[in-house]
Amino acid sequence: MQMGSSSLPPGFRFHPTDEELIGYYLSRKVERLEIELEVIPVIELYKFDPWELPDKSFLPNRDLEWFFFCPKDKKYPNGFRTNRATKAGYWKATGKDRKITCKSSRVIIGYRKTLVFYEGRAPLGDGTNWFMHE
Amino acid sequence: MQMGSSSLPPGFRFHPTDEELIGYYLSRKVERLEIELEVIPVIELYKFDPWELPDKSFLPNRDLEWFFFCPKDKKYPNGFRTNRATKAGYWKATGKDRKITCKSSRVIIGYRKTLVFYEGRAPLGDGTNWFMHE
Repeated sequence: MQMGSSSLPPGFRFHPTDEELIGYYLSRKVERLEIELEVIPVIELYKFDPWELPDKSFLPNRDLEWFFFCPKDKKYPNGFRTNRATKAGYWKATGKDRKITCKSSRVIIGYRKTLVFYEGRAPLGDGTNWFMHE
Repeated sequence: MQMGSSSLPPGFRFHPTDEELIGYYLSRKVERLEIELEVIPVIELYKFDPWELPDKSFLPNRDLEWFFFCPKDKKYPNGFRTNRATKAGYWKATGKDRKITCKSSRVIIGYRKTLVFYEGRAPLGDGTNWFMHE
């Protein structure tokens, strides 16, 4: 079932925990299993500047937070680095990645990286208030 | 449509604003209009002690917050005072009532009263950490 932005009853919000995002949404997506409600669209994230992203969301943006899946885009065809440049700027990691563990088993199920958007070209861009958690 | 506690997809929470609770859920209940998803059960709140209430909720209690409708129970048949005594104690108002306004029109649509549960008999009960917003 796919979700339209107008179909949530009043008072309901999508406020997933990191464990739910990785343990349910991401892992089922990767394994191509059914997701009960397709609330997270797959987009090519770096084709858009951050202010263009809210429009791509399935859910209303009351909490100024939006969720997307995005296939990784390599910087060089044979390399490991991720291409994080957009038209108007680039995303750059900040702080330390956070471990996401499964509450019941304490197994690490993933890492959460925080990125900030810089306008302009690396390394001379200007930091903005747009944040991404990957 | 009535809601079972297991039917919310992962990541979804019922986090209504006061405006949604009064402007949608309460006002439609009072006017006997259809509510899209019946997530708030009608119970006789004061027949239960606070620790018995979570079980009466339609929604899971992850945020330790539960929602109920309750018809007002008068203390005396011809009076205006509300009976707030339970088996093990009583609820007592604390602080100032908060105005709830409609964001777009700024009209006051209701008041939010905060109450604390006291164990024992008034006025000698012992305060607890159970809070109610009415």
